[in-house]
Amino acid sequence: MMIMKALSTLVLAASIAAPALAQEAGTSQGTANPALSAYMRDVVEGQLWKRTELGPRDRSLVTISALIARGYGASLDAEVERALANGVKPAEISETVLHLAFYAGLGSANNAAPAVERVFAARGISTDSLPGRDVDFLSQNVEGEAARVAAVAGLLGDASPGLAKFTTEPLFSEIWLRPDLAPRDRSLVTITSLIALGQTGQLAGHLNRALNNGVTPAEAGEVVAHLAFYSGWPTAFSAGPVLRDVLDKRTE
Amino acid sequence: MMIMKALSTLVLAASIAAPALAQEAGTSQGTANPALSAYMRDVVEGQLWKRTELGPRDRSLVTISALIARGYGASLDAEVERALANGVKPAEISETVLHLAFYAGLGSANNAAPAVERVFAARGISTDSLPGRDVDFLSQNVEGEAARVAAVAGLLGDASPGLAKFTTEPLFSEIWLRPDLAPRDRSLVTITSLIALGQTGQLAGHLNRALNNGVTPAEAGEVVAHLAFYSGWPTAFSAGPVLRDVLDKRTE
Amino acid sequence: MMIMKALSTLVLAASIAAPALAQEAGTSQGTANPALSAYMRDVVEGQLWKRTELGPRDRSLVTISALIARGYGASLDAEVERALANGVKPAEISETVLHLAFYAGLGSANNAAPAVERVFAARGISTDSLPGRDVDFLSQNVEGEAARVAAVAGLLGDASPGLAKFTTEPLFSEIWLRPDLAPRDRSLVTITSLIALGQTGQLAGHLNRALNNGVTPAEAGEVVAHLAFYSGWPTAFSAGPVLRDVLDKRTE
Repeated sequence: MMIMKALSTLVLAASIAAPALAQEAGTSQGTANPALSAYMRDVVEGQLWKRTELGPRDRSLVTISALIARGYGASLDAEVERALANGVKPAEISETVLHLAFYAGLGSANNAAPAVERVFAARGISTDSLPGRDVDFLSQNVEGEAARVAAVAGLLGDASPGLAKFTTEPLFSEIWLRPDLAPRDRSLVTITSLIALGQTGQLAGHLNRALNNGVTPAEAGEVVAHLAFYSGWPTAFSAGPVLRDVLDKRTE
Repeated sequence: MMIMKALSTLVLAASIAAPALAQEAGTSQGTANPALSAYMRDVVEGQLWKRTELGPRDRSLVTISALIARGYGASLDAEVERALANGVKPAEISETVLHLAFYAGLGSANNAAPAVERVFAARGISTDSLPGRDVDFLSQNVEGEAARVAAVAGLLGDASPGLAKFTTEPLFSEIWLRPDLAPRDRSLVTITSLIALGQTGQLAGHLNRALNNGVTPAEAGEVVAHLAFYSGWPTAFSAGPVLRDVLDKRTE
Repeated sequence: MMIMKALSTLVLAASIAAPALAQEAGTSQGTANPALSAYMRDVVEGQLWKRTELGPRDRSLVTISALIARGYGASLDAEVERALANGVKPAEISETVLHLAFYAGLGSANNAAPAVERVFAARGISTDSLPGRDVDFLSQNVEGEAARVAAVAGLLGDASPGLAKFTTEPLFSEIWLRPDLAPRDRSLVTITSLIALGQTGQLAGHLNRALNNGVTPAEAGEVVAHLAFYSGWPTAFSAGPVLRDVLDKRTE
């Protein structure tokens, strides 16, 4: 009898826990928002993701970066799965999380890590197959880096020597030069983080860097459109005029 | 014996899991923050919610919008319950989530959906009773929409054709015209999202739209005061001077 | 048989639930991000936390404030533990949560409360040992407060009487004067919240307040460097030039 009572208590606990966990993990059934489900299907999946201005792989990179930067865990597992399906390599996802640890904060990377681990574990992607700290860095553009250091000194003066130091080492002398995520892709992740978090102050500089790294104007414009959906219309409308201004100045 | 051992393991697992889930779901007991509990009771509940400058129904709409926009799940279930008690209809809550999918990003809507679903399920509110995608749209102000399109073209130029397109269709030709959340309420949700996320760049425009849609100056000022508590003092103090400027210009 | 079947179901449920809960609680194993783990160890722990420009106690105060303000729960338990180990008193942590309820919004405080409760409960820190609402307030600088009220009136005009009222009472007449977190520490928490949430509009004013409250220029600069890691590079680079300008003007 005691066993049965204990069991029934546990069955109850488990039956409460199971859907709660599913919901914690973001498995919304759409029951409270039928219109949202319809717009997701018709507009987001049916139109946005099919536009050719930005490829599905890049959209996935932008999408997971926006979700991680904003701390939205609910659909992260599913979007990491989609990223892999769209050709983003496991090492690129791992590097994206590392890059965002710098551009959106350690907390956002730590919040995102379990979702990435769940997907990698389910697919048998082992830690050994992912890049560690020691890698063969890409070669640095020495002139560009000197200009960057000078610009930072102009911005900060002596106000934060620590920030200047860590920006040089490791951010620009290591992170940006790690080979498992191309500079173009790091630029996509960086501008996504800036737009998604509404940090437009440094957006012009990083949009120019992105264009120099091979992101086309049309792709940059579509990143803004994609982020209207994934980080909200206001973030896109804060970014759009900055992009326009950057593009105008480059063609003058 | 094996059964008993398995059971005791399970009892232990369940006893760990149960409080953890309660805490995940935000059931803080206030034990670590007795002063915060007291200020919640005395100032937030005892004063703020009772001020007549903004009705309880509107405060609920603003509160759940702020929590969803900022991704704060801990008290969302309780605030959705309160919103229903304060007269916000289930369809209006569902439309608020949809509206915020556009104004705060899909991730915020997806993060919020499970809480809304839990409350709706507990109250027997069925999906069938909620508006789907197909509704009889409100009629559009043709002149106003033409002015909006021109303003967007002026802001974006050719930088992001996708953003211009999706802003017209579906955002302004469908979402804003869906009948189950009045334009005035959509304006409350929109300015809440802008203020809560610190996106003040488009706030003046949307405050003007809100005032045109029937939000009074006193109500707008009290939304700012309400959000001081729900999205933080800095967000309110970024919004206050913008509101002042908007009101000054309308009375000139 | 039924018992065994029920048990095996429960064992399965528990074995699913346990790691999921561990992951919800942020116990990332670092398996998906070996490079991030290495940089955490080598740069964040090995370099940043050891820099003498800002003491470990202050770094802990800044770290938990940034995590709470941004809503990053994954490493909050561990950082609250570290804060206690670094000499932040339980009452100071409780007051930090209260202060952030005002500066980052009630939702951020409510989201953080369970983690603080878990750590306090595990250490036997009782509610009775923590400050309630009734305390002997520090004495107020009457001139400074009059200047603050006038500045707020200049900013807001009549746009939000509620915001002006609650800023005076309770924010500046009670919260800032509560004795269990020193004004200098409240300033550290406040500027952290402003920087972490990208709310630079009021940062200059609060940096001046922080310097008046005893934060040194070197400490302020290192808060910015610390937050580069904990709330992301863009937040630090938005704050750095503001700090520089504040310091330049004070030495003129």
